[in-house]
Amino acid sequence: MLTNIAEAAKLASFDLLQASTIQKNAALTAIKNHILDNKETILSSNELDMNAGRTNGLNESLLDRLLLTSERLDAICADIDTVINLDDPVGAEFDGKQLENGLFLKKRTVPLGVIGVIYEARPNVTIDIASLTLKTGNACILRGGKETLNSNITLIKIIKQALVSVGFNENCVQLIEDPDRALILELLKMDKYIDMIIPRGGQKLQQVCTENSTIPVITGGIGICHLFVDSDVDQSKALAVIENAKIQRPSVCNALDTLLVHKEVAHTFIPKLVASLGKKDVFLKGCPESITIDKRIAPIEIDGYDTEWLSLTLGIKVVDSVQDAILHIRAHSTAHSDGILTKNIKNADLFVMAVNSAAVYVNASTRFSDGSQFGLGAEVAVSTQKLHARGPMGLGALTTYKWIGQGDNLIRS
Amino acid sequence: MLTNIAEAAKLASFDLLQASTIQKNAALTAIKNHILDNKETILSSNELDMNAGRTNGLNESLLDRLLLTSERLDAICADIDTVINLDDPVGAEFDGKQLENGLFLKKRTVPLGVIGVIYEARPNVTIDIASLTLKTGNACILRGGKETLNSNITLIKIIKQALVSVGFNENCVQLIEDPDRALILELLKMDKYIDMIIPRGGQKLQQVCTENSTIPVITGGIGICHLFVDSDVDQSKALAVIENAKIQRPSVCNALDTLLVHKEVAHTFIPKLVASLGKKDVFLKGCPESITIDKRIAPIEIDGYDTEWLSLTLGIKVVDSVQDAILHIRAHSTAHSDGILTKNIKNADLFVMAVNSAAVYVNASTRFSDGSQFGLGAEVAVSTQKLHARGPMGLGALTTYKWIGQGDNLIRS
Repeated sequence: MLTNIAEAAKLASFDLLQASTIQKNAALTAIKNHILDNKETILSSNELDMNAGRTNGLNESLLDRLLLTSERLDAICADIDTVINLDDPVGAEFDGKQLENGLFLKKRTVPLGVIGVIYEARPNVTIDIASLTLKTGNACILRGGKETLNSNITLIKIIKQALVSVGFNENCVQLIEDPDRALILELLKMDKYIDMIIPRGGQKLQQVCTENSTIPVITGGIGICHLFVDSDVDQSKALAVIENAKIQRPSVCNALDTLLVHKEVAHTFIPKLVASLGKKDVFLKGCPESITIDKRIAPIEIDGYDTEWLSLTLGIKVVDSVQDAILHIRAHSTAHSDGILTKNIKNADLFVMAVNSAAVYVNASTRFSDGSQFGLGAEVAVSTQKLHARGPMGLGALTTYKWIGQGDNLIRS
Repeated sequence: MLTNIAEAAKLASFDLLQASTIQKNAALTAIKNHILDNKETILSSNELDMNAGRTNGLNESLLDRLLLTSERLDAICADIDTVINLDDPVGAEFDGKQLENGLFLKKRTVPLGVIGVIYEARPNVTIDIASLTLKTGNACILRGGKETLNSNITLIKIIKQALVSVGFNENCVQLIEDPDRALILELLKMDKYIDMIIPRGGQKLQQVCTENSTIPVITGGIGICHLFVDSDVDQSKALAVIENAKIQRPSVCNALDTLLVHKEVAHTFIPKLVASLGKKDVFLKGCPESITIDKRIAPIEIDGYDTEWLSLTLGIKVVDSVQDAILHIRAHSTAHSDGILTKNIKNADLFVMAVNSAAVYVNASTRFSDGSQFGLGAEVAVSTQKLHARGPMGLGALTTYKWIGQGDNLIRS
C-alpha cells in the first residue's frame, strides 16, 4: 500500500515537471479557497483530535500546537498567499557557455521529484509543506503525528479536491494515514521513488531517519547553540544579545544553550549576567570556575554541555581564550548557530573561519537563524548537515539542477 | 583503530579550515616533488601488487589499471599541476546583503570537513582524491582495493612526508590499510567524524553504501544511458552520434546502453544502424519489432533494458513517440545521461523538460558527461543522485557554505 502511494507520487512528480509557475500558483490559490470554503469541516475534524488529545492527557503546549481555529486557518491561508508571491526557483538557467569541444552547456533548476516529510503534531505543517513542495514542482508524501490524524485527513482531502479542480494530479500531495510506526521504516527504504526525506522533529526521529534511510535525509532542527563573550567586549550590549538569544523564545532550536565567557572578563561579567538573567527566571548551570565567581550558579550535569535545553536553562563555562571557546564549540555544537561577542576584529575573523557551523554570528543573536529572518520568504526546515543545504532552507533547497548539453549532432573526439 | 583514524581526520580538517590557497598549493607541489623523488620506491611497491595480481589471476584489464610506470607517475604529477592551477572555491563570499532586521548576512564557501572515499584497484585514484580534497581544504580517509594495497601504502607514506615537509598535519590524508571488508561497514557509521562518503565503484559497492551509511553518500557512476532517434532526424548524423556514444569507450558509465528509435524511421534507420555498427563489432539486442525489421538483431533479455553493458553491446527498442521514449527512459534510466536526436525543436524542449537526468542532451553524444569535457578541470565523481551535486562533480562539490551574520550587538525583535 505504501508502494502504491510512492508510485503514484512519482507519477505525479513527472506531471509537475511540466507545470508552469502560473499553473502552480493557480493550484495554490485553489487550495487556499478550498480551505476557506471548508473551515467548518476542518474545525470539526480538528475538534476530534483535540478531544482525543485531552482524553489521552496531552499537555497544554501540545494541545495548543494541535489546535486549529478560524483565525489560525486565516493565518494558514495568508501563508499560502506568501508562497504564491515567492519567486519560483524552477526553470532558472545558469552557467551557460559554449565549451571548447563545441557543446552548448548550461544548468537548469528543476524539482527534486518526490519529497517525504515526517513531522509531529502540528496540522499547519501539513499545509505548509504541501504549499512549498507544490510551488517547487515536487510531489510530497506526508507522515504527520497520529494526534493530528483527523485534521490531516480532512486537510489532505480538501487539498486533493483543490488540485483536481484546476486539473492537477491529486497525488501531488499524499498522506500516510495508517499510524503504524513500522511504515516510517518502510518509507525510508523507498529510494526508488522518493528523492529526499525531511524529518521535522526531535533527536530520536532524526536518528531513526539517519540510521535507516536509503534515501538522502536532511537532518536538522537540533540546535545546541553557543555565544562566546570575548575579553574585549561591550558588556552591557553583550548582555542584551545573550538575553535575547536565551529568553525571547527558549523552546526553539536557535535559542542559546551554552554561554562561554573569557576568563579575563568572567569576574565582572558573570555576576551581572546572573543578576540580570535571574530576574527573568533563567536557571544557570555552570563549570566549577563560574560557581566560584557566583554561588547562585548550580553545577552543570556531566552531559550539560551536550544538552539542547529548550527551556529557560543556560549553561555557562569560563574559557581561557577564543581558541579555547572554538575547541569547546567544535566538541559540543550541533553546528546550527554559534556566535562571538567581541570588539576584536581578529578574534571575530578567527571565530568565523574556525567554527564551521551552518550559521556563525558576530555580535548578533543566534535567534536570527530562521528562514523568515534570513529573508527566504519561507522555511522548509533548518539543516544542520553539510550537504545540499545548510541552515534555514528556502524554496531553492527543494530543487536541484540538470545539465543540458546541445550540439549540432556533436561527437566527442 | 578506525575511530583513531576518523578522529585524527576531523582534527586535521580543523587545521585545514585555516589553510590559504597558497599554502594548499605548496602542499600539492610538495606531494608532486616527493612522488617524483621517490619513483623507484613507488614502482617497487607497485611491482609487489602486480606480482600478487598475476598470481591471483587478475585479468589483463585489471592488471593494466593496477600498473604504475615512470611515465604514468609523470602523468599523475601533471594532474597534480592541473589541480594546483584550478581556482580554489573555498573562501568565496556571495549573496551578501543587509536584511531589514539590520543583520549583515552573507554566505561563504567552506570545506565539507572529512571525506571518505571507497574505491577499487587504481592507485592513481589515491593521488587524485588526495589532491582534490586537499585543494578544497578537506581531510580524506581512503579505502582502496586490496589489490593495490602495497602501492597505496607507499603513496600515502610519501604524501604524508610531503605534508609534514610544508608544515601540514599529516592526517589530512589517511589510508585504511586493513583489508577487512567489515571496516567498510564500520566506516559508514562514523557520522560523528565524516561528512561525506563517495563510493567509486560498481553497483554492489554503491548499494552497500546506500543501505548502510549514516553519512550522506554521493552515489553515482552507474549509467544506463539512452539516445532517442526521433522521426524528424538527420539519419547519417544521428548514426555518427550513436557510434560515438557506443563505441568510443564502451567500458565507461557515459557510454550508450539503449537506443530508442521512433517507429516512423525504424524501417529505414535500423538496417543502416545494424550494418554500420555491425562492422564495428557492436552486438545488437532488441525488441521483437526491431528484429522484424532486421534479423541480425538478437532478442534482448528480460532485464536487458536495465543493464549497463560496459561493452560493445547495444539494446534497441522501437517506440511510438517522443512521449513513449520519455516513459521508457523514466522507467529504465539511472538518470546519468540521456539524449534526443531530432530536428524538431518542440520535441527537443519536451524531452529536456520531461527527462530529469543529471545530463540531458540534444543532438550530442552522451560521452560528453565528464568533468574534463564539461570544463570543470577535475572530476571527483559523477553523481546520479539529486541532492548536493548532479552529474560530473568538480571541486565545488567538495565544499559547502556557511551563513555569516554580523551586527552591532543585534537582537531579534
